[in-house]
Amino acid sequence: MTPARIVLTSLAFATLLTAGATRMRGTDVGYPAGYREWTHVKSELLGPEHPAFPRFGGLHHIYANDPAMRGYRSGRFPDGSVVVFDLLAVNHEEGRTFATSRRHLDVMEKDSARFPSTGGWGFAEFPGDSTGDRLSPEAKRSCAACHQRMADDLVISEYRDR
Amino acid sequence: MTPARIVLTSLAFATLLTAGATRMRGTDVGYPAGYREWTHVKSELLGPEHPAFPRFGGLHHIYANDPAMRGYRSGRFPDGSVVVFDLLAVNHEEGRTFATSRRHLDVMEKDSARFPSTGGWGFAEFPGDSTGDRLSPEAKRSCAACHQRMADDLVISEYRDR
Repeated sequence: MTPARIVLTSLAFATLLTAGATRMRGTDVGYPAGYREWTHVKSELLGPEHPAFPRFGGLHHIYANDPAMRGYRSGRFPDGSVVVFDLLAVNHEEGRTFATSRRHLDVMEKDSARFPSTGGWGFAEFPGDSTGDRLSPEAKRSCAACHQRMADDLVISEYRDR
Repeated sequence: MTPARIVLTSLAFATLLTAGATRMRGTDVGYPAGYREWTHVKSELLGPEHPAFPRFGGLHHIYANDPAMRGYRSGRFPDGSVVVFDLLAVNHEEGRTFATSRRHLDVMEKDSARFPSTGGWGFAEFPGDSTGDRLSPEAKRSCAACHQRMADDLVISEYRDR
């Protein structure tokens, strides 16, 4: 290969690696391989006093791929945007609160053509360290309904930019 | 420019953007511009019961540039590695613990030639949202001494890889 072709091939490969969740058919959202190298959006801790603790308690980190980062900056998320909500159980020890095991990984992927009935976004939840989505179609609609109530383009979080 | 040259120029520009802290002379460590797009290593919360609370209490996030990520994976950090400890004050509200303002940004940069007397690493601390290092030479030696007691190559944290 010529040097230019090597560079272009490397770029294409890098794009594949960071393009987001595996492309899926129908209403499926794939496991977001490599999301730990995406941009860290923000984090928060939900304790036992929070009403959502049974479902979402623990330390969560939100990660976004490059298209989703354009969405955080512009307010409009392009197709291909993937946002990951990584929820970890925590332990407390002498004033330290630190993550232990993963509770689940929630993923939302923007694809206006594939998810027209849920605001253009598809939803998935991967329990523990598994890569299999456990959400029923009804549960996915419920994700979308709640996100739709809370945010214009269904993304609730805001990028922590300082 | 030819397409190949445009690609190469873009690559060079991207490398500049992600190369790490601004190159400095002597014992100075520059502000790590763009670190929020680096890889998120891990996070932890230190509460009032922790002995280090006055100095390091709050929610911290650790970020690493690409050379430092090679260090996390191999155990040997190459020159050019930069690790950022981003310390945020927190508020508590109905079970939520969330970040408010930045307390300070601590930075360590590996450069064996410039920092031979402190294990090959230089240290800096930027209070609040400022970009001016407030550490005295004595304080920098104290950073290095404590890090040296706690870790082989002075990096205390471990990458959260799942």
